[in-house]
Amino acid sequence: MSQPTSSPHTVRAIDVIRKKRDGLELSRHEIEAFVSAFTRSEIPDYQVSAWLMAVVLRGMTRPETAALTDAMLRSGEVLDFSSMTARKVDKHSTGGVGDKTSLVLAPLAAAAGLVVPMISGRGLGHTGGTLDKLEAIPGFKVNLPVARFREVLDISGCAMIGQTAEIAPADRKLYALRDVTGTVESPYLICASIMSKKLAEGIDALVLDVKTGSGAFMKNEKDAVFLAELMVETGERMGKQVVALITDMDQPLGNMIGNALEVVEVVEVLGGAGPKDLRDLCLELAGWMLHLGGVARTVSEGKQQSAHLLSSGAALTKFRQMVELQGGDVRAIDDTKKLPQARYSTPVTSPTAGRVMAMQSEQIGTASVILGGGRERKEDSVDPAVGIVLHKKVGDRVDRGEPLATIYSNDESRAQRARDLIEQSCEIGVAAPAQRPLVHRIIGKPGDTR
Amino acid sequence: MSQPTSSPHTVRAIDVIRKKRDGLELSRHEIEAFVSAFTRSEIPDYQVSAWLMAVVLRGMTRPETAALTDAMLRSGEVLDFSSMTARKVDKHSTGGVGDKTSLVLAPLAAAAGLVVPMISGRGLGHTGGTLDKLEAIPGFKVNLPVARFREVLDISGCAMIGQTAEIAPADRKLYALRDVTGTVESPYLICASIMSKKLAEGIDALVLDVKTGSGAFMKNEKDAVFLAELMVETGERMGKQVVALITDMDQPLGNMIGNALEVVEVVEVLGGAGPKDLRDLCLELAGWMLHLGGVARTVSEGKQQSAHLLSSGAALTKFRQMVELQGGDVRAIDDTKKLPQARYSTPVTSPTAGRVMAMQSEQIGTASVILGGGRERKEDSVDPAVGIVLHKKVGDRVDRGEPLATIYSNDESRAQRARDLIEQSCEIGVAAPAQRPLVHRIIGKPGDTR
Repeated sequence: MSQPTSSPHTVRAIDVIRKKRDGLELSRHEIEAFVSAFTRSEIPDYQVSAWLMAVVLRGMTRPETAALTDAMLRSGEVLDFSSMTARKVDKHSTGGVGDKTSLVLAPLAAAAGLVVPMISGRGLGHTGGTLDKLEAIPGFKVNLPVARFREVLDISGCAMIGQTAEIAPADRKLYALRDVTGTVESPYLICASIMSKKLAEGIDALVLDVKTGSGAFMKNEKDAVFLAELMVETGERMGKQVVALITDMDQPLGNMIGNALEVVEVVEVLGGAGPKDLRDLCLELAGWMLHLGGVARTVSEGKQQSAHLLSSGAALTKFRQMVELQGGDVRAIDDTKKLPQARYSTPVTSPTAGRVMAMQSEQIGTASVILGGGRERKEDSVDPAVGIVLHKKVGDRVDRGEPLATIYSNDESRAQRARDLIEQSCEIGVAAPAQRPLVHRIIGKPGDTR
Repeated sequence: MSQPTSSPHTVRAIDVIRKKRDGLELSRHEIEAFVSAFTRSEIPDYQVSAWLMAVVLRGMTRPETAALTDAMLRSGEVLDFSSMTARKVDKHSTGGVGDKTSLVLAPLAAAAGLVVPMISGRGLGHTGGTLDKLEAIPGFKVNLPVARFREVLDISGCAMIGQTAEIAPADRKLYALRDVTGTVESPYLICASIMSKKLAEGIDALVLDVKTGSGAFMKNEKDAVFLAELMVETGERMGKQVVALITDMDQPLGNMIGNALEVVEVVEVLGGAGPKDLRDLCLELAGWMLHLGGVARTVSEGKQQSAHLLSSGAALTKFRQMVELQGGDVRAIDDTKKLPQARYSTPVTSPTAGRVMAMQSEQIGTASVILGGGRERKEDSVDPAVGIVLHKKVGDRVDRGEPLATIYSNDESRAQRARDLIEQSCEIGVAAPAQRPLVHRIIGKPGDTR
C-alpha cells in the first residue's frame, strides 16, 4: 500500500482524497484523472471508497459535479445518432411504486416524430424497474447490441434497452463500490450516475421526473428539489436542454403494481384509457418531451398532441412495433390476458368504513417484493406474473369489508404477508385528506411558453 | 461485492459504515465485531476505508473511542508481566524534532526500580523515531522475540523494541490502510492506535508527552489538548493511570538532531549533563513516571530522585546494561566518538547580528531527512551518522557570521540543501522573543500531590 512518488504532472489519488476530506474544491483535471485511473483499475477500491465517503459527507460544488459527470460519461462510449434528423429526447425517473410512465412515453414521443434511445435499469428494493416490466412481455429482449439498438431506433423511433458494458463503465464500477460502502445516498453521486448514463445516449434534451413522497427515494420535497436542480444545472453545463418535474409519489402511480400488471395498465393508457393520475403524468412529461424536442411550440401544445396520439391509437401502434422489433410477442399486447398470469388472487378488505387518508407507498412496494415481483438484492430474479391491483386510492370512500386491493400471487404464504403489509399501509379515516398535486414544481424551464 | 444476508446476530459491515456516516454512536459490540472481522480479513479494505473516512469526518464519542482502542488491543497478544513485582510504567511521545527523551527515560525509570517494557516506532516525515536512534548504536537489536524482551526486562528493568506481529495486529492493518486513504488525521484514530499498542505492553501506568508547536504533529495547542484528553480518558476507562503533559515543540528539543548525534546527547543527559531543555523535560516526565509507578510520593519527589539517578551515574549504568543485553556495542556508549561519524561538516552562519526569534522545527526536521537521517517514505533506510547540531536556540544572541548550526553529512549537495532550509528556518531579529514554557499544561492528574 505504498504511495507512488509524486510528480508535478501526476494526480496522486491520496491528494485527491485529502483535498475532498478537507472540503476543498477539486479541479476538473483532478476529477478526470481520478475517475479515468479508477476505470482502468489503476486506483485501488479502498482509496476510491474513502474518497466516496468524503464526497458523501463534504459534498461537491456544481463545477465538481459537472466534471464528475463528464468524466464518467467519457469513461466509455458516447452514442452518436446524429445521422437521424429528428431530435433525440429521453425521460428519466428517480423511481417509485407503480411508475410505468417510461413504457408509455417512449412510443408516445416516437409517435410524435422524436427519437427516444432509452437505456433503463432494473428494480431494486421497493421500486420497480423498466427492464423487468418489459421482460414481462414474452420474448422481449432488453440486451440488444448497440448496432441493433440503432436499427430499432431507425425503424420505429424508439427502443428500450439495459445498460451495456460500453456505456459509462466508470458508473458501473463506482456504483458496485457505493452499494457496499454506504455511499449511495449522495445527491452529487446520484446526479453524476444518472446524468452520465443519460447523456451517453447521445440525446439533445432530457425530461427528469424526480419523485417525492412516501414511495420515493427522496422522501421530502427539499431533497428532491436539491437533486433536481443539481441534475438540471449539470445537464445545462454540458450543453443539453434539461427540465425536471418534481412529481408526487406519496401513493402508488396508477392502480397496478407488478411487472405484467403494469404492462396491462400501459396498454390501457396507450389506448386512450387508464387511470387518471397515470395518464395525467404521462401527458405532463410527454408535453415537455415534445416541447423540448421541438415538435410542439409550447408544453400545453405538446400535451394536446400527446392526448391525440393516445386517443388515435398511434402511440399504441408505435409500442406494438417496438415490442415486435425487440422480439416480444405482440399477441400479449393485443390481448393482455396472454401476459403471465398469477395462480392465486387474494382480496385485501377494509376493516372499517371511511375514506382512504394515506397509503404508505414504500410498504406497498415492499409487498410487491415479498410476492416476488421485485428484488431485495441485485442477484434476485423476479416473477413477472405477481403483483397488486389497487381498487381505492387516497381520497376514495370505502365501506367496511369492501376490497381495497387484490393481490396476485404464486405462493399463498407470501400473499398473506403482503396482505398484512398492504392493510397496514392504508390509513382509513373520516375527514377528507389533503390533496397533493401531481406535479409539485418544475425546475429549469428551457424555452417554456406554456 | 454483494452484501451478506442480514441476520439478527450478525453485525453487517455496511450497517456499521452507514451508522457512522449518519453520525450515530456505534455500540461496543458493533465496533468489536467490525475490528475483529477486519483483522481476520473478513471485511474488505474498501469497506473499512469508507468507515475510516466517516470516522475522520463524523468523529467518535468517548465510549466509541475506548471500545475501538479495546478492540484493537485485544486483536492480538496482551503482554503479561504480572510475575514481576515492580510496577510497569511507560512513556509515549507524539513525536517531534530532536526528541530523544525515551532513551533517557527507560533506563532512568528502571534505575528507580520500575519496569519499562517500551515498544517504539520508527521515524517518518520530519520527526525522528526511537528505533532508528537505538540502531545508531552498533549491534543494537530492536527486533527481539517476546521471550527475549521478557528476559532483558527481568535482568535490567527496561527493554526497548519495535512493534511485533503479535501486538495489536488490527492497528498494523488499519494504519497501512489509513496511510493511503487520507485517514491518518483523526484524533480518535490516533488515540486508539497509540493507546491500543501501549496498553498491550501490560503496563499499569502511562505518561504521555503530547507535543505542540511548529515541529509537532499537532501544530496548535487546542488540538494537542483535545488528543491528550481523549487518550487520558481512554486509558482511565481501561483501568490504567494515565497523565498527559502538553510540551513545547516550537523549536527542536536539545541541540542535536540525527540518530547517532541524539545518542551522544542522551549519554550526556544520562551522565548528569546535557542541554537544559532536554534535561528539564526528562526530569518532568520521569517525575511523573516515578510518581505513577509508586516509587515517589509526589511528582517533585520523583524529579529529585531522577536528578540524583542522573548525577550518580546509576541511570547511565542502566542504559549501558540494556544496550549490552540487546546486543549493542557498549564501547560506543563509553566513548561516543565510536558511534557512526559523518564525512563532512558544514557550518550554517548567521547572515546578521541579533537574537534568534524563532526556529521552524518542521523545516529543521526536514533538513535532517534531506541529509538521510530520516524517512520520507516507510521503505526508506536511514543514515545513522548524519544530522545537525544547533549552536543557538530561541532567545540566544548571535553575531553576524557566527555559526547557528553545524551540518554533518555524507553528501555535500545534500548538505547545501539542508543548509538553505536551516538558514530559512532561523528567524533573526532584535527584540527578545516571547519565552514559551517547556510544559504548557498537564491533563489528568491521577493522585498528583506535587
